[in-house]
Parts: sequence; C-alpha cells; structure tokens
Amino acid sequence: MIKQNRAQRIIDALKESGVPQMLITDPLSIYYLTGVSVMPMERFFGLLLKENGKHVLFLNRLFTVPENTGLEEVWFSDTDPVTELITEHVDPSSPLGVDKDLKARFLLPLMEAKAASSFVNTSFAVDKVRGVKDAEEQTKMRIASDINDRAMEEFRKLIREGVTEREVADQMLEIYMKLGADGFSFEPLVAFGANAADPHHAPDGTVLQPGDCVLFDVGCMKDHYCSDMTRTFYFRRVSEEHRRIYEIVRQANEAAVAKIRPGVPLCELDLTARNLIEKEGYGPNFNHRLGHFIGLNEHEYGDVSSVNTQKAEAGMIFSVEPGIYVTGDTGVRIEDLVLVTADGCEVLNRYSHELDIIGEENV
Amino acid sequence: MIKQNRAQRIIDALKESGVPQMLITDPLSIYYLTGVSVMPMERFFGLLLKENGKHVLFLNRLFTVPENTGLEEVWFSDTDPVTELITEHVDPSSPLGVDKDLKARFLLPLMEAKAASSFVNTSFAVDKVRGVKDAEEQTKMRIASDINDRAMEEFRKLIREGVTEREVADQMLEIYMKLGADGFSFEPLVAFGANAADPHHAPDGTVLQPGDCVLFDVGCMKDHYCSDMTRTFYFRRVSEEHRRIYEIVRQANEAAVAKIRPGVPLCELDLTARNLIEKEGYGPNFNHRLGHFIGLNEHEYGDVSSVNTQKAEAGMIFSVEPGIYVTGDTGVRIEDLVLVTADGCEVLNRYSHELDIIGEENV
Repeated sequence: MIKQNRAQRIIDALKESGVPQMLITDPLSIYYLTGVSVMPMERFFGLLLKENGKHVLFLNRLFTVPENTGLEEVWFSDTDPVTELITEHVDPSSPLGVDKDLKARFLLPLMEAKAASSFVNTSFAVDKVRGVKDAEEQTKMRIASDINDRAMEEFRKLIREGVTEREVADQMLEIYMKLGADGFSFEPLVAFGANAADPHHAPDGTVLQPGDCVLFDVGCMKDHYCSDMTRTFYFRRVSEEHRRIYEIVRQANEAAVAKIRPGVPLCELDLTARNLIEKEGYGPNFNHRLGHFIGLNEHEYGDVSSVNTQKAEAGMIFSVEPGIYVTGDTGVRIEDLVLVTADGCEVLNRYSHELDIIGEENV
Repeated sequence: MIKQNRAQRIIDALKESGVPQMLITDPLSIYYLTGVSVMPMERFFGLLLKENGKHVLFLNRLFTVPENTGLEEVWFSDTDPVTELITEHVDPSSPLGVDKDLKARFLLPLMEAKAASSFVNTSFAVDKVRGVKDAEEQTKMRIASDINDRAMEEFRKLIREGVTEREVADQMLEIYMKLGADGFSFEPLVAFGANAADPHHAPDGTVLQPGDCVLFDVGCMKDHYCSDMTRTFYFRRVSEEHRRIYEIVRQANEAAVAKIRPGVPLCELDLTARNLIEKEGYGPNFNHRLGHFIGLNEHEYGDVSSVNTQKAEAGMIFSVEPGIYVTGDTGVRIEDLVLVTADGCEVLNRYSHELDIIGEENV
C-alpha cells in the first residue's frame, strides 16, 4: 500500500522542478513509500511514482513480498527485458526523475529506449522528505533509541578488569536481541584508552587498563529504524586532564542541544559545540562534523556541519556528537539523537551524561 | 603505474565495440589496472582509460594514495566541479564506455556536458579480462587458498562437545590473521546439523550434538585476493544416509573437476555434478549453481551454472561447490577453487575430501 502522505510530499517536491514522474530505486526509499522491504542485490527493484497516482512497483520473481502490496505490480524474471517493462509505464513525453544511485546498466537502456523526454537526478526530493520524519517514524525512532539506552546499561556491566574490546563487542548483539532489537544498525565501536582517539579503530584484543577511557559508539535496528549513541566511561580512575576533556565534551553536547529549534541553521549547532571546544584549547581535537541525519539508514542525507546553512525543521532527527581526541592518549565522545520539535527538541537518548568512573578506586 | 598488459587487453576488447575510451569507476577494477587502492564511498573515483595510452586517474583530496601513481592525476575537493574536470579529459567526438554500476549522479552531468558523443555500458570488457587471471594474480590466489587450507586445519580443532556455532565463528578471524591473512573475504558460515541445510543461516547459539554435520564455508583475503572453500565434517558419528550423501557430493565435486580443461562449456561442469546427484535421487536437494568466479571480489562476474555456455579458458579461477541439503536434517557441501590450466586444471585447495568423523565413537 502506498503511504499516501509521504508519496504526496515527494510528488509536490518533484512538481517544483517540473518533473511529473520518478523512478525510485533505493530499496529504503521504496520501503519508506510502500512498506515493501526487499534486498535486490544486483537485480532491478523500482517504484515508479507518478503525479497522476498510478504508481507501479517492479519486482523480480525471486523477491519475496507480501501477498498484496496494494500497488500495481509488474513482475519479471532474470531473463525478461526489464527496460521494456519499465518503458511501457513511463510517460515518454515528460521528464523522468531518477535516483542519484541508479546504475548505468539500468539508466542507459532506458535512455536508449527513449522512455522519457529527459532524465533528471531528483533524489533531492526524496532526501528532503525522508529528512523530516512523520509521527509513525518518530515513534519507531523513539523505540529504537529506547532499546539503545537500555542496551547501554547492559554494555556498561561488561566493563571489568582484564576484558578485551573484542570480548565486549562480541556480546553486544545478543544483548540487543534480548532487548527486542532486530540487529545492529552498524558494527559496534568499542575502544579503550588511546584506541578511542582513532576514528578507524575496530574492536581488537586490547586489554582494559586502569585509567583507560571506554568508548562505546553503538546502535541497533528496530522495525527498520536505526539508533546510534555514544558514551565514554573511565575505568578505575580518571586523570585531571581527562576529566576536563570529558566535561568540555559534555558541555559542547548540551550547549548545542540547547540551541535546537525550528529555524536555527544547522551550522549554528555545529559552531556552538565547536567554539566551546576551541575556546578550551581543543579545537583541532574535534576533527569531524557535529552530527548526521538518521532514520531508515544509519547515515542519511543531511548533516550538521559548520558549512550547512540548512535550517532545522520540526521532525528532523539527527545526531549531536561532539568529541575530543588526543592521539596516543584518550578519546571522548558523547552522542545523542535529537528530534526537532515545534519549539525546541526532544533528546531521544536518556542515558546519563555524568562522568562515570567504573569501579572507582578509593583516593 | 598502469599495468600495461591488463590495460591493453581491456582496450582491445573495447576496440571491438568501437569504443576508444572508458571511464572505469569500480574501485577493484581501478586497483586491478593501477595498483591504487581506494575506498571512495560516496565520492567520485575514476580511471579514464584511453586507446592512445593517455590514461587519467581522478582523485578526491581526501583519498590516500602512494606518492607517485605513475599516471596523470587529476585531484579535486568535495566542492570542485568533478564533471568539468572529467569532461576536459574525455574526447567529446567519440563514444565513452562506462562501468555498469556508474551512478546516475555522475553519469547524468557528464551527458549534460556532452562529454562524449555517446555513452555505452562497456563493463563486459573489464569483466572479461578480469575473469582470466594472469600469472601475478594466479600466484596471489594460490597464496590466499593456501592460507585457507591451513586455516581449515585450525578450524577443525575448534570442533568439540558443547561448542556453539558462534563460538567457533568468533575465533576464525584471529586464526586467519595469525596465518598471515588480511581479513575475511566474507563472513564465515558455520552451521551444525539441520542448520547446514539453510542457505541463509548465520552462526548462532546452536550447540553441537553427536551425529551433526559441521559445515564451514570460509575464506580470507590476502594481498587483495580472495579465497573460498567449504568442508563438511561429522561429529562423533554419521548415519548411513549421511555417509551416502557425503560420498555423492564428493563424487560430484571430483567428477566436475575431472572435466575441466580449456574449451569445455561451463554448463557442462555444472551438469556433470548435477546429473550425478540427480541419478542418486538428490536432484532437488542441489538447489544452486555449481560455482562462481572469484578474484579481487569473492563473487566476480561469471558463473558455472547449467545455462552458461561460455567456455573455460586457461587462467579462469572459479569455485566448484556441489551440495546436498536436506531440510531439517543435514547439509553437505564440498567446495574448492580451481584454476583452468593449458591442459586441465589446478585445484587451489588441497584440504582432503575424505569423510572426517571428528571424535568418532567406537562402534
């Protein structure tokens, strides 16, 4: 069944560019619009969205979908001429919008067949609409982040003398599944001590040492939606400098969140956190953007960076994740997902920001 | 440095289609041709291959590559007009070949800019050449499969009373790394008993039981090349029917391999194994093709299926992996990689095909 409101918002955005039809091929965008979930791999899977409401779903016979999608379905086999089947349904006298990632092996034959009067990358229309979550999506995002909060409590319990990063990471999937998640939204990042300063670090055999930070950047999928949160703990003790770094990151996170409301340029959020960190002397140590959009994908179109002048709108969901990384020493990041509301924002993660020194030694 | 022989083979194949230039964007194909390895993610990364030998490599400033690639390099930033930079180097009066997976967001602007007289999907030229490995590649493939053989011996030692699939799978990466591999070529498949009959099974908490089969479908990367092998063991005892199934699969594997020589149609290899299995009454239980090509990618263009009439050529490397799957009961697959030679083939895996009943009970 087509999700009428979502489809209409995309059609409205397309109309502004004079494009009355679009061939959507991103499987997540098709799920977003139809509820039909398919992993097409190298096969063609497409939704032709038409201004006149006569949408068509193109399906390979090897795909498994619900009995009745409520859409006009065109089925084909690996040996069928997909291009012809699509061409039959496209209005050849109008431009056709296509997904930015549509592959040449599908696009070139459609052009060859003169399926449309012109071909235009209209992904912006889908991206723009998907960037503003409706009530159903907001609910699912809250649920995914709620599981993530509860999982973080369990992950914290895995921190003990002698444990390795990989031993901790290896237990996370089971914890998520027990809490009702459908899987990871991305491979968990578990980093101890200096490893936390390396953005490309993957959990390995590093053994936890007293004084190390413990950085967990983790997320799960629930009902197709993603969560994503980072917390940084310290083990047994924390040096004065590390405590200061932690507090700066916490303030940067909270200062940025305090600014969120419809109309604020996203770059202003990034700069709020960045200026605060710079003022404390750690500017070069915050070497990434403040956040990214998230939803059906762990990273969606849209970012919260120092150069994005796009304005926040109610319904947007993105991460706020300032960090300070000191090579060879430590790394601290505190990340929450936030939903922009009519008059501010709702932080989807509730797990505490307080500095937590696990198994603290008496001093 | 361009690999002259490989580039020339592709240029020759392009010439047959009247295409004097091709924009290659598959990162593995670019590595194949230049030795430059980049993970471009959403950014543009391309090699313009030209009949006149004036090849150009297009690189984002965020990529890390060797000091001197020996090629003409065109560098750009995220904010630079990539289309214009490419267009400056393409001959606008000739057709331009493009990769099958080139994305609309790169292809459409090139067409808009009239960078070439026409745009053609010429991936077949690259696929065809990559499908026949040269001596350097053959050596690397032998090394990757040799590590895989030695790893299989270690994996076998993990089979013991009470172990779970996940516990076994979790130890495999470390074993590969100790043996000198660079990582997995794909996530290892570990399946006990009835799980081995499910092609989509992922290692889980299933505990090994006496009488279970133990199926390992595993592979590693070494120096950019992939290995891939399957062995099926039995634990403590094997039923008469399972022993019969095992022997049929073994014969199917060896009968297909015995037929390999230049000129034999690939479908004949599939049918040799398939007919043997059918004759024994398990036809419907061998529900996939006999094999796939492999090299820089775990699955490359080219397959060994009942409908592929393409002929074997010296230098081709593919898998031979017949199987019999009995839902709810057991699954047996025996897979080796083979290299077609001038007068037959070289089996790259040397790990035994003999039925191995681990910890066999006295009978």
